[in-house]
Amino acid sequence: MSAAPTRTPIHVPLAVATRGGAVESTHYGAVAVTDRDGRVLYSAGDPELVTFTRSALKPLQALPFVAGGGVERFGYSLAQTALLCASHSGEPRHVDAVADMLARSGSTVAELQCGTHAPGFYDARGDIPPPPPYSPLAHNCSGKHSGMLAYCVQCGHPKDSYLEPEHPLQREIRGAVVEMTGVADADLVRGIDGCSAPNYAFPLSGLARAYARLAADASDAVYGNAPRTLASAMIRHPEMVSGALRSDLALMQAGRGDWVAKIGAEGVQALGVRSHGIGIAVKVADGQKRGLYPTVIAVLEQLGLVDAPARAALDAWRQPPVRNYRGIVTGDVRAIVVLDKRRATRLPR
Amino acid sequence: MSAAPTRTPIHVPLAVATRGGAVESTHYGAVAVTDRDGRVLYSAGDPELVTFTRSALKPLQALPFVAGGGVERFGYSLAQTALLCASHSGEPRHVDAVADMLARSGSTVAELQCGTHAPGFYDARGDIPPPPPYSPLAHNCSGKHSGMLAYCVQCGHPKDSYLEPEHPLQREIRGAVVEMTGVADADLVRGIDGCSAPNYAFPLSGLARAYARLAADASDAVYGNAPRTLASAMIRHPEMVSGALRSDLALMQAGRGDWVAKIGAEGVQALGVRSHGIGIAVKVADGQKRGLYPTVIAVLEQLGLVDAPARAALDAWRQPPVRNYRGIVTGDVRAIVVLDKRRATRLPR
Repeated sequence: MSAAPTRTPIHVPLAVATRGGAVESTHYGAVAVTDRDGRVLYSAGDPELVTFTRSALKPLQALPFVAGGGVERFGYSLAQTALLCASHSGEPRHVDAVADMLARSGSTVAELQCGTHAPGFYDARGDIPPPPPYSPLAHNCSGKHSGMLAYCVQCGHPKDSYLEPEHPLQREIRGAVVEMTGVADADLVRGIDGCSAPNYAFPLSGLARAYARLAADASDAVYGNAPRTLASAMIRHPEMVSGALRSDLALMQAGRGDWVAKIGAEGVQALGVRSHGIGIAVKVADGQKRGLYPTVIAVLEQLGLVDAPARAALDAWRQPPVRNYRGIVTGDVRAIVVLDKRRATRLPR
Repeated sequence: MSAAPTRTPIHVPLAVATRGGAVESTHYGAVAVTDRDGRVLYSAGDPELVTFTRSALKPLQALPFVAGGGVERFGYSLAQTALLCASHSGEPRHVDAVADMLARSGSTVAELQCGTHAPGFYDARGDIPPPPPYSPLAHNCSGKHSGMLAYCVQCGHPKDSYLEPEHPLQREIRGAVVEMTGVADADLVRGIDGCSAPNYAFPLSGLARAYARLAADASDAVYGNAPRTLASAMIRHPEMVSGALRSDLALMQAGRGDWVAKIGAEGVQALGVRSHGIGIAVKVADGQKRGLYPTVIAVLEQLGLVDAPARAALDAWRQPPVRNYRGIVTGDVRAIVVLDKRRATRLPR
């Protein structure tokens, strides 16, 4: 792994799984920590690694709706505003609140084009879900999609084509991605997300920048109060962004109002830190969550952001044991990431 | 990833998952291809990478029993001999045959110390299993454990402690690992496997060597006909080693008698090729199967071992599409491994 000193490897080892005291598996990836202007302060691997951001994009996908006054127009609660950015677990509180969001814009479950999957709370509990069919309301992205339908009502756009890349909503979202990340439109790579919405790949530093801006305490130059509204909703209602026993809930509870956190499929985590005006973006190259959790906590620790209560709140995620079919602990998962601090020796403020 | 030219990186990119035509995720790892003497012929990454081998160790774990005449003593069929090496799917044919193996040694289900999990055939079909409890007979390692109990009966060893590292059976197995892999006893790293049996980490080249020896057509200098008996049973009954819709079944069917294949947890694949007297060992660093299947097929292709019928038989595993919750193809998983052929330009024979 020894690259020439002047060249940053694309991916570096972030975390390992052990067995019998030896390394069994290794999770590679990259980390970018930036300020609101996208200046890379700390990194591991290549902070300019181009990656899809998946559900970490949700707050940006909600920006056109919120900036356009959608929350006020449809009377969404703060919890429902958080659901716009959610990968929720399909718990009753999530399903009920999303059903109400749909009703408030005169939309129906049948108009949701996210597809279906087993409600996530079964997996979070380690339980086996009942067999299909499942309601689209329980899809982890149903809040986002309900907001997308509401945006169509708000603007008089057609609802049936709301996921088409050239639909006015998706064009607005693409613009928000460009604005918030600082990545040129021509540099965005478009793909189709798990929920069938357009998703974009761009440098990790751009994702960190967007979250730094989301976590800003001032009004945004382009989107006004919308970023702050979304971040506040997520921070106040992490249980709606995520769900019981899940990592974003644990992270935002540990952050006690300072951290806005959003996981994305395929090993992505974005996090904004209000007190320092920074954003953190992590990509685990192999796409697994297993290596992601300890890495994110290690990065927060190396940034000096984890105090004793936060450490206690994150204890279950920091170095989880690996157990076998009889419950015997055979090893653990632990971070080995080391942030490169050559570019900055301490955080802003 | 650019290491100095004289130094092999530990892991190299083996496979990627794409989305929208771009790389979304990357699976690192290493490959070793050796002859029966352990000479590395081809490699990717470090062929001396130390890794646990998990269920790829099963044929070696069965050697003491088979070499000691256990198959004949208990009248195991060829299918049951294959089950000694199996990570089976818990299908009725597997469960029934294992129950008979236990009965033949006067052992009981209650003596199996493998633990329990949902029968694998549900996952192989993409179905949700019923809730627990599950029978230990359906545990993917129940054939191996039944053979371990039978070995205790065969030798008059205590059964209740058969998984203890110092139990005579486990000492015999450790000796078989040393003998077949060519790795010094002092260099073995011991861990506890998912099924609670001792498992060992050693260089990937040692695993390849063991499979080259398993695939030999001559009598083994130390274990006589036992390796050939095990390999033949696996090749004749791949449906007992693996299960419907699973990769080892597909590989051995594609090999049409020439390939003996065994997957292991955490991204391990071992494969012996009878016609060339070689062994192949692959470790995907992150432990996922997703990157393993295309990598193994690409390695076989680069060795010139995949003819048209084999290619057709492996088609579903070679570059599988990634689909989202509505069944839309959003990308695929494809191998990018390139075997280093500097050490050998063509296969033996």
